[in-house]
Amino acid sequence: MKARVHVMLKNGVLDPQGEAVRHALGSLGFDGVEGVRQGKVIELDLAEGTTEDTVKDMCEKLLANTVIESYTIDMG
Amino acid sequence: MKARVHVMLKNGVLDPQGEAVRHALGSLGFDGVEGVRQGKVIELDLAEGTTEDTVKDMCEKLLANTVIESYTIDMG
Repeated sequence: MKARVHVMLKNGVLDPQGEAVRHALGSLGFDGVEGVRQGKVIELDLAEGTTEDTVKDMCEKLLANTVIESYTIDMG
Repeated sequence: MKARVHVMLKNGVLDPQGEAVRHALGSLGFDGVEGVRQGKVIELDLAEGTTEDTVKDMCEKLLANTVIESYTIDMG
């Protein structure tokens, strides 16, 4: 089974990567890009029967830094 | 309006970041993690009326390295 985890910087936390992308898009002539936030997506291939709680545990312990990042889990 | 772009390494391209996460999860006692792929997610805040074609253009020109990465676009 698959699970997909999105890890994004929390609102209010400066995102220099996203800001760099926004600038670069502007330089390339793409107007109207008002904001960019960049995060991580982690696709996990898990043994059958793994619960969402286990994935949540993985996020808390390793995948996300919960001080500055938030995460969402999609079980697929 | 919002758009969300996922950029993942293509299948067959070595993903050392994902592999490192898989190892680390194993070390933390999470069994049954058969594979991990790590990619990027880019959330774009765009002017109203921006088309998916424009976002595709952004991906081709900047957001993804299409030699080794594939991307998917969700217009929100």
